[in-house]
Amino acid sequence: MSKNLTKRGEDYSKWYNELVVKADLAENSGVRGCMVIKPYGYAIWEKMQAELDRMFKETGHENAYFPLFIPKSYFSKEASHVDGFAKECAVVTHYRLKTDEVNGGVIVDEDAKLEEELIVRPTSETIIWDTYRKWIQSYRDLPILVNQWANVVRWEMRTRLFLRTAEFLWQEGHTAHATEAEAIAEAKQMQQVYATFAEDFMAMPVIKGTKTESERFAGALETYTIEALMQDGKALQAGTSHFLGQNFAKAFDVKYASKEGKQEYVWATSWGVSTRLMGALVMTHSDDHGLVLPPKLAPIQVVIVPIYKGDEQLAEISNRVEGIVKSLRAVGITVKYDQRDTYKPGWKFAEYELKGVPLRIGIGPRDLIQGTVELARRDTLTKESVNQSELTERVVKLLDEIQVSLYERAKAFRSERITEVDDFETFKEVLETKGGFISAHWDGTVETEERIKEATKATIRCIPLDSVNEDGTCVFSGKKSSKRVLFARAY
Amino acid sequence: MSKNLTKRGEDYSKWYNELVVKADLAENSGVRGCMVIKPYGYAIWEKMQAELDRMFKETGHENAYFPLFIPKSYFSKEASHVDGFAKECAVVTHYRLKTDEVNGGVIVDEDAKLEEELIVRPTSETIIWDTYRKWIQSYRDLPILVNQWANVVRWEMRTRLFLRTAEFLWQEGHTAHATEAEAIAEAKQMQQVYATFAEDFMAMPVIKGTKTESERFAGALETYTIEALMQDGKALQAGTSHFLGQNFAKAFDVKYASKEGKQEYVWATSWGVSTRLMGALVMTHSDDHGLVLPPKLAPIQVVIVPIYKGDEQLAEISNRVEGIVKSLRAVGITVKYDQRDTYKPGWKFAEYELKGVPLRIGIGPRDLIQGTVELARRDTLTKESVNQSELTERVVKLLDEIQVSLYERAKAFRSERITEVDDFETFKEVLETKGGFISAHWDGTVETEERIKEATKATIRCIPLDSVNEDGTCVFSGKKSSKRVLFARAY
Repeated sequence: MSKNLTKRGEDYSKWYNELVVKADLAENSGVRGCMVIKPYGYAIWEKMQAELDRMFKETGHENAYFPLFIPKSYFSKEASHVDGFAKECAVVTHYRLKTDEVNGGVIVDEDAKLEEELIVRPTSETIIWDTYRKWIQSYRDLPILVNQWANVVRWEMRTRLFLRTAEFLWQEGHTAHATEAEAIAEAKQMQQVYATFAEDFMAMPVIKGTKTESERFAGALETYTIEALMQDGKALQAGTSHFLGQNFAKAFDVKYASKEGKQEYVWATSWGVSTRLMGALVMTHSDDHGLVLPPKLAPIQVVIVPIYKGDEQLAEISNRVEGIVKSLRAVGITVKYDQRDTYKPGWKFAEYELKGVPLRIGIGPRDLIQGTVELARRDTLTKESVNQSELTERVVKLLDEIQVSLYERAKAFRSERITEVDDFETFKEVLETKGGFISAHWDGTVETEERIKEATKATIRCIPLDSVNEDGTCVFSGKKSSKRVLFARAY
Repeated sequence: MSKNLTKRGEDYSKWYNELVVKADLAENSGVRGCMVIKPYGYAIWEKMQAELDRMFKETGHENAYFPLFIPKSYFSKEASHVDGFAKECAVVTHYRLKTDEVNGGVIVDEDAKLEEELIVRPTSETIIWDTYRKWIQSYRDLPILVNQWANVVRWEMRTRLFLRTAEFLWQEGHTAHATEAEAIAEAKQMQQVYATFAEDFMAMPVIKGTKTESERFAGALETYTIEALMQDGKALQAGTSHFLGQNFAKAFDVKYASKEGKQEYVWATSWGVSTRLMGALVMTHSDDHGLVLPPKLAPIQVVIVPIYKGDEQLAEISNRVEGIVKSLRAVGITVKYDQRDTYKPGWKFAEYELKGVPLRIGIGPRDLIQGTVELARRDTLTKESVNQSELTERVVKLLDEIQVSLYERAKAFRSERITEVDDFETFKEVLETKGGFISAHWDGTVETEERIKEATKATIRCIPLDSVNEDGTCVFSGKKSSKRVLFARAY
C-alpha cells in the first residue's frame, strides 16, 4: 500500500478519482463507462442498502422485481418521459451470436433480429405502470407500495466512478394511490426518509426542497430533492422523490373503481437513490490521508494491529486480543484483527487510514505489561492510551462521538457556504471565490434560470422547503420575486 | 380470491403455472420471456438470499459487483465457454434512440452504433477474470473469495416462470486460488453449502454428485451438483459448483508470483443458484389447495383471522389479538393480523391456504369466552383448539414440526422413487410408469448417454458422491461398468 494520494487542495477531482481506486471502492472495467464495485466498496453499499431497506419496510413498502428490458414503444407512451429518458440508452437489437466461420470468434447472427428493439431500463416507470394496469381494478387494490433494487443503464458520455456511470445500482420506489393527496404525502414522506438516512447514517447534512420545472424528473408534476454540499463547494443531488400525478396512469390506462363504483385514474409517485451516494459519502468526509467513514456505514469499525517481533510475541498479543475482540463483538461492533505476517504495522496503519476505518487499536509488548492499548481516531488523527479494562466502553463512546462529530463538521462547513446574495456581480464573485450555495431571488422563469446557467454554470438546486416569503428582486433580471432559491454549481 | 386451481393429478404443468400466478409469486411481463416477481414471491426470494448470503459470508466470501455488459470478444477467449454460452443472448448494438420524424415515437439512431457489440451477461466468468488479472499479482493477493448477486440473461425460446426465463436473478461466486487442491476444496465446500441450504431451509432433500462431461458447465473440469426430485417424478438441478482449473486464468492471462517468486496460473471456481429455486420450492411441497411453504422461508409464518359480526365484536377480538401478536413477535415469529373488512373470513382462509402460510389462527366470539383459538396447519390441513395461554409455545413447536415434517415427507417421496434397474426395458418402463431417479450402470461414454437421452429423454443427473464401486454392465450397451449413476427426466 503506497499512498501518494493527490491533495484535495491541489486537484480535488484527481484526489477523488485516486481515492476511490486506492481505497478499493471501485475501478473502471473493460466496458466503457461501467464500473466494478470492489468488495470494500460494495460492503459500504450493502450497509446503505440494509438501512434504506429497513426504512422502506417500516413505512409499509415491499420489494418486487421487474424486467431489465423495456420494449421501445413503451417509452413513447408518456410524452414528456420519452424526451427525458429514451435517448441515451443501451439498445438490444439481436438475440443470438454465431461462430464467425471466416475470422474465428463470434459475430451477431443477422437472422436473429428482434421485431421490436428492447431498451435496457434507464428507469422503470413505463414497464411498471404497464404491469400495474393488471394489478389494479378496485380501490381495494390500492395503495401499491413497491420498491425495486436494481441495475439501470444510461449511456453517459463522460463518466466518473460512482458519480456518473453508464450502469449503476439503485433502488426505485413506485407507488400507486387512490387520491392526489395521498400520493403527494407519499412523495414527501420518501424525501424525508432520504433526508433522515443521509443525516443519521451518512452524517451528511442535506437541504430539502423542490426542483424548478426545468430540473424536474421527466414526467413529474413535482420533484422533491435532497441536496448536499461537497468539500469543493459543489452541490450534489443525493436523492429525489417525484409526484407523478396521473401521467403514467393515463399513458398506460390504469384505472380503479372507487367505493362509489366510479372509474378513476390512479395517482403515482416514484423515488430513488443510487450508488451515487457512495461518491457523496467519499466527498463529504474524506481527507488527504484517505477515506473517512461514519461508523454507522463502516464495514470495519475497529481494526486491531499487533506490533511484535517474532512468533512468540505475536502469540501473546493474539491471546490478549482474543478477549478484546470478543468483548467488542458482544456489543455489536465490527472488528477486524489483522495479524498478517506479510505486512508491517506501519504499512497496515497507512492502509486502514486510507480505508477510513474509524478506530484503530495498536497493541505491542509494552501494552501487554501495562494493560493498555493505543487507540487512534481516524477523523481527528488523534491518539490516546486506554486501559484494556475500559476499552469497550471507550470504543462505544468514541464511535458515537465520531458519527456525531462528522455530521457537525460537515454541517458547519455547509453553513459557512450558504451566502445570501442580492446582485449578479456578487453572485458571480461568490461562485468563483467561495463556491457553495447562493441564496438569491429568482423571477421564476425558465429563461432567467437558463441564462444564469450559461453565464455561471450554476443551476437552481432547489427551492428550499423552509424558504420564507419575502419581497425581493431577481438577482439576474431585477423582476419581482417573493422567495429565495438556492443556486450552486453541481455534480 | 377464487381458487379453481387445476389439480396436480390432472395436469401437473398447468397446476404449476396457475399456482405461481394465483399465489402472487410471479407473472409474465410484456417482454417476451421476462417475468415480474411480485412482492409475495420476492419476499420468499429475499429470505433465500438472506440465508445464502449469511452462509457465504460465514465461509469467508465477500460481495462485489461487475458490469452487466460483456464485450463480445471476451467470450471468444475461452474456447469451450464460447460454445456453451455466447450464442443465445441479448446483444446491445446501439447506444441511442432518436425521435422518429415521420411516424412519431422513437427509432434507433444508426449513427450511434457500437464499435464492438456488448452482450448482456449470461454468466460473468469472462468479465470477472478480465478484472482479476488486475487484482492478482502475488500469492498474497490470494485467495479471492467473491460473490455477486445479479441479474443475467439467456435467450431461452421456451420459457416458464422461475424454471426457465430469459432474465433471472441469481448469485454467482467466483474464486481464485493458488493451488488446485484449494480450488477443488472450495468447489466442494460450496456444493455442501447449497445442499445444507436446500435441506435445512427449503426442506428439500437433494442428492450430491458430479456431472458427466457432457452435462458439465462450459469451461469447467468438474461440475458438482445438487439434484432434487419434484412431485411429478422429474428431477431438477438446484445448484452447481464448478472447478474451472486454470482455463480462465490462461484465457485472461491471470498469473501470480508464488512465495518462491515463480509465475503461476491461478486456479478457479464458480458456483451459482438462481430464482429457479423458487420453482423447486413450489414443486416440492405444494398441493391441490395451493402453496405449502416451509416455515423458515415463509414471509408470513402465522396469519390471524378474526371471525366477527359488527364493529364491537371486531374491537373485542382485536384487543385480544394484540397480546397474541406481541407474544408471537417476541419470540421472532412473523405474524400478520388480517382485519380487513373488505373480505369475509372464508375468503381469507382460502387466500392464506393458497399462499401457503404455515399456520392460521382463527378467533371468534366463542374463543373470547373460552380463552381459546382455532389453530390450522397448512401442510396437513388439520385443526386444533388451543388455549390462548399456551398458544405461543404451541406455535413455536408446530413451526419446527412443520419444517421437519415437510422435509421428511419429501424425502420419503424421493426414496420411493429411486429405482435400481439393470436392463433397458425395465429402465424405459420405470421412467414411463413411476418416474423418479433410475440408478443404473453406465459405460462412461458420451455416446451411450446421448443414445439413452434420444430414446427416453432421460439424462444422467449425476454420479452420486456416495455411489459405491460395484461390478456391473451398462444398462444400454452391456459394456463393463464399475459404478451406478442416476438417470432421470429433468426440468
